[in-house]
Amino acid sequence: MSINSRIEALRVLMSEENIDAFIIPTGDPHQSEYIPEHYKNREWISGFTGGAGTVVITKDKAGLWTDGRYFIQAENEIIGTGYNLFKMDLPGVLTYEEWLRDNLKDGSTVGFDGRIYSQAAFEAMKKLLESKNIKYKTDNDLVEKIWDDRPAFPESKAFIHELKYAGMEAIDKINLVRAAMDEYCAEFHIIGKLDDIAWLFNIRGADVPSNPMLVSYAVITKDKAILFVNANKIDEDVRKYLLGQGVEVSGYEDVRSYISSIPNESTILLDKSSLNSWVFNSIPKSCKTINEMNPSFKLKSRKSEIELRNQKNAYIKDGVAVTKFLYWLEQSKEKFEVNEYTASEKLYEFRSQQDGFVSTSFKTIMAFNENAAMMHYRPSESVHKIIEGDGLLLIDSGGQYLDGTTDITRTIPYGKISDEQRTDCTLTLKSHIALIGARFLYGTSGHVLDSYARRPMWEVGMDYKCGTGHGIGYFLNVHEGPQRFHNTVVNNVALEENMIISIEPGVYKKDRHGVRIENIGVVKKDIETEFGQFMKFETLSFVYIDTSALNISMLTEKEIEWLNKYHSDVFEKISEHLTHEEITWLKEKTKRI
Amino acid sequence: MSINSRIEALRVLMSEENIDAFIIPTGDPHQSEYIPEHYKNREWISGFTGGAGTVVITKDKAGLWTDGRYFIQAENEIIGTGYNLFKMDLPGVLTYEEWLRDNLKDGSTVGFDGRIYSQAAFEAMKKLLESKNIKYKTDNDLVEKIWDDRPAFPESKAFIHELKYAGMEAIDKINLVRAAMDEYCAEFHIIGKLDDIAWLFNIRGADVPSNPMLVSYAVITKDKAILFVNANKIDEDVRKYLLGQGVEVSGYEDVRSYISSIPNESTILLDKSSLNSWVFNSIPKSCKTINEMNPSFKLKSRKSEIELRNQKNAYIKDGVAVTKFLYWLEQSKEKFEVNEYTASEKLYEFRSQQDGFVSTSFKTIMAFNENAAMMHYRPSESVHKIIEGDGLLLIDSGGQYLDGTTDITRTIPYGKISDEQRTDCTLTLKSHIALIGARFLYGTSGHVLDSYARRPMWEVGMDYKCGTGHGIGYFLNVHEGPQRFHNTVVNNVALEENMIISIEPGVYKKDRHGVRIENIGVVKKDIETEFGQFMKFETLSFVYIDTSALNISMLTEKEIEWLNKYHSDVFEKISEHLTHEEITWLKEKTKRI
Repeated sequence: MSINSRIEALRVLMSEENIDAFIIPTGDPHQSEYIPEHYKNREWISGFTGGAGTVVITKDKAGLWTDGRYFIQAENEIIGTGYNLFKMDLPGVLTYEEWLRDNLKDGSTVGFDGRIYSQAAFEAMKKLLESKNIKYKTDNDLVEKIWDDRPAFPESKAFIHELKYAGMEAIDKINLVRAAMDEYCAEFHIIGKLDDIAWLFNIRGADVPSNPMLVSYAVITKDKAILFVNANKIDEDVRKYLLGQGVEVSGYEDVRSYISSIPNESTILLDKSSLNSWVFNSIPKSCKTINEMNPSFKLKSRKSEIELRNQKNAYIKDGVAVTKFLYWLEQSKEKFEVNEYTASEKLYEFRSQQDGFVSTSFKTIMAFNENAAMMHYRPSESVHKIIEGDGLLLIDSGGQYLDGTTDITRTIPYGKISDEQRTDCTLTLKSHIALIGARFLYGTSGHVLDSYARRPMWEVGMDYKCGTGHGIGYFLNVHEGPQRFHNTVVNNVALEENMIISIEPGVYKKDRHGVRIENIGVVKKDIETEFGQFMKFETLSFVYIDTSALNISMLTEKEIEWLNKYHSDVFEKISEHLTHEEITWLKEKTKRI
Repeated sequence: MSINSRIEALRVLMSEENIDAFIIPTGDPHQSEYIPEHYKNREWISGFTGGAGTVVITKDKAGLWTDGRYFIQAENEIIGTGYNLFKMDLPGVLTYEEWLRDNLKDGSTVGFDGRIYSQAAFEAMKKLLESKNIKYKTDNDLVEKIWDDRPAFPESKAFIHELKYAGMEAIDKINLVRAAMDEYCAEFHIIGKLDDIAWLFNIRGADVPSNPMLVSYAVITKDKAILFVNANKIDEDVRKYLLGQGVEVSGYEDVRSYISSIPNESTILLDKSSLNSWVFNSIPKSCKTINEMNPSFKLKSRKSEIELRNQKNAYIKDGVAVTKFLYWLEQSKEKFEVNEYTASEKLYEFRSQQDGFVSTSFKTIMAFNENAAMMHYRPSESVHKIIEGDGLLLIDSGGQYLDGTTDITRTIPYGKISDEQRTDCTLTLKSHIALIGARFLYGTSGHVLDSYARRPMWEVGMDYKCGTGHGIGYFLNVHEGPQRFHNTVVNNVALEENMIISIEPGVYKKDRHGVRIENIGVVKKDIETEFGQFMKFETLSFVYIDTSALNISMLTEKEIEWLNKYHSDVFEKISEHLTHEEITWLKEKTKRI
């Protein structure tokens, strides 16, 4: 079934239901970033495989909205379809809600599947379209009716994240959440976010590749904690563990009937941005809802000392795996052919040899030359480039370990690189150091600090059309909030001690090359003076940065000092886990410049 | 009448009116920053003379809330009164609204004068106190009843800001506002902000010292423009001019009856943050209000080419006046005694010799040594220090000229300064250059860029407890939005071309010294590349920076290059307006380092 015929089939259903515009966001019922195959409606209807975007279909138009990370990829993937690409973030480009406002007739009907649309997004859209007297049909999963070979609902088994990893019993975490509920005088708390639920109950699953979670909802009351999850996911051991922690298990689909039976006039704490409108709609109208960040979301962003100790260990293991891979890659040169896909398989192999390895933390980006200009390009068995000749290989990858989630990017030179590529590699390193080396006053947000990384780029009229970094979960999502480095997405969350965050500036030049250097930092207290408490980043990632791709004359003394110190740390922490040949090689890679 | 007996007198009235907590903010009916003497209720009740702060009086407590600019001053001024000082901005310090929430009993009554309380502030407080079932009495100017010698209502005369200065006829500005109203489908627009009204109608007055405005309201409709102002302020010439521009004049107090007669279900554009709750309350309940920034507020922040050309001229004149003053100051050394007050009078004299000078743009800060640690200290005829011996003299001053508003700060060394003072002067200069020399992507806010100025301070564990800079009006308020540099006050307004903004980092060490270097910059387009439109600052202020207070070894090559270029510009633009002796002296002050 071609993309165009899928659109046409949808239009037939829209016409039957009198729907003028149908919205298909990227999402599952839990507002997850990485979503189960079962919920990849937007990908199916558009052919666009990127991780973020929204499709809107009307009688005669089809639009795809996506952000700067995916412009190049989306342009390529929608060739030959009827889609118009709307490049979000660019000045003057309408959001899809604004486009609906400007293009729909008064009194039109907008449809979507309420389960994959957050209540916050729904309310924002309603407000924007207020003047248009729009009617909404939100109980229509129209795609279900035409997607014949739709993948099955995810059914992985739950397992317990042992105390030695989790660091705190589920019951203690639940009681922290109850204390936060008390501050809002809330009797009920509904959670839709899968990583919040996994963290809170110390359980994990594998419903989404690279994201060790279970499709579920949770409700916390003053004396009850209920996990809504399909029964076949929970074996006897897990059920017993949960019961021991005061957690009841109920069916996944029972969540709406449970919520609709909440006593009238109760006060319910929830986060409209991560709760779908289908669940929200089941709340009795007389109840008072308090729309705030889930307490678990905030609590888990500040890693405990046990989580942090484990996480550090995971980063050493991950550094060893990546270092061994880079050694292998260099040795393979001129011996046998390596392509982006076989290289990413080999990298997986090295990671899987590490203790406690579970899976990748996201699909590996192994991108040579112009492929690396597409920020989220992934090679596949069928589509990939051979890594040979001159250029830059960008490798962005990570692992899920029982003791932590990792993410790291390195850009490796091949053959002879151009002056421009060398400049771009050096600028990227300068940007990286500008941020990871910063001392900042307590209270400063990632939105503000993002500009430290961009400054070296901006000075020469360059920029990257994405954030500089994201929070990272603990054997959970590789992207985790609330902290974030971004210039155009405002985020006023202060960087708190023990938050973990990536620092990954880059250069992306369409059809030419891409560069990214990513290390992960943990926020720590720095000095306290009469002027306040200062904070700093401590680097968790230990993999050498290829100095042969740099123009050393562009670096300041301070930057050179940073790099030499970093390489000395890398060698110290990684070399003991390497073979003799690898050590000799790493010694050379990490030598002082 | 002592401060304590004023508080007691207020408590008697509060008790008669059954008011449990009475709020006295700093404000006039127009949410002005600098307010007519008539409206200085908060100063009268507290004795605190700073420019910002809020008093809350309850039966047994009296609190003063103010921000970092005024901590030291407030501490000194409230000694011996019953006031507790609440230091806003510091971690863990409650706002006064939070304090009311935590300290008032359920069902208490809160009182204030609705004319000096913005509708936005009222709504925010109501929301925060929602759970407390608070009753509000907002028609009580209790202070009026006990303030015997209250200064009279301001009655300055209006005058026309001629077209050669204003650059655009009032009618054309009003039509720009009407176009903005159309975007919101608004039939009415109510303006409470005095500088918006003055800019829009090309009229000025002198109701507040240093702020050339008239106490007034305005209403714009599709075919009418009404200025509500006391009749005795408007002479025949002004009335004719206004009529010619399509502006009717009505009495100041008539605004409420006019607004209450707006037809039912009209749509009214207004800014709740700059419209008082007393006026807001007169809007018919069936009307729809659209709460947005006043179009005039936004329009006037981007100076026209004529305004900018005039403004540049005003900055040259101002630079000449300040330079002549600094020459005089240096010549006076060891010849005759100069104190902070006589020096500020002398500075006024030099400014007043310039063409088109009207007044200072704010009360001059002339602060020697420890006085300069109080960010907003002002000398008076009775309280001042003699400028003698060793130390640093901080001079922050500005002028109102018919062709522009100026603001500049320099810190001048006296005798032998300490290594610490030298370091602090140099750090301040590094901070200044870090921001004014920045290239940044279009769309970046002052909240983000503020961190560029702080970086050199933060690196050594220092900070200043105020914003880095503010927008500036055009023969209007010296503080003008919406742009601003601040770290703790979030402001996501992008810096647009032709916005004018101050850059004034500093060091403030209680009981020791203060340093500040302030130049004004105008935002201009810089290069455009494949990565976007970049922006930069062009400096408007031309007064030498005293290099004898610097530790040159702390400056980078780039910083030295910036300073030498700046000094070459200063000499070029200023010297032609000086005497022979002054030129020789300035040549030395601006010589290359």
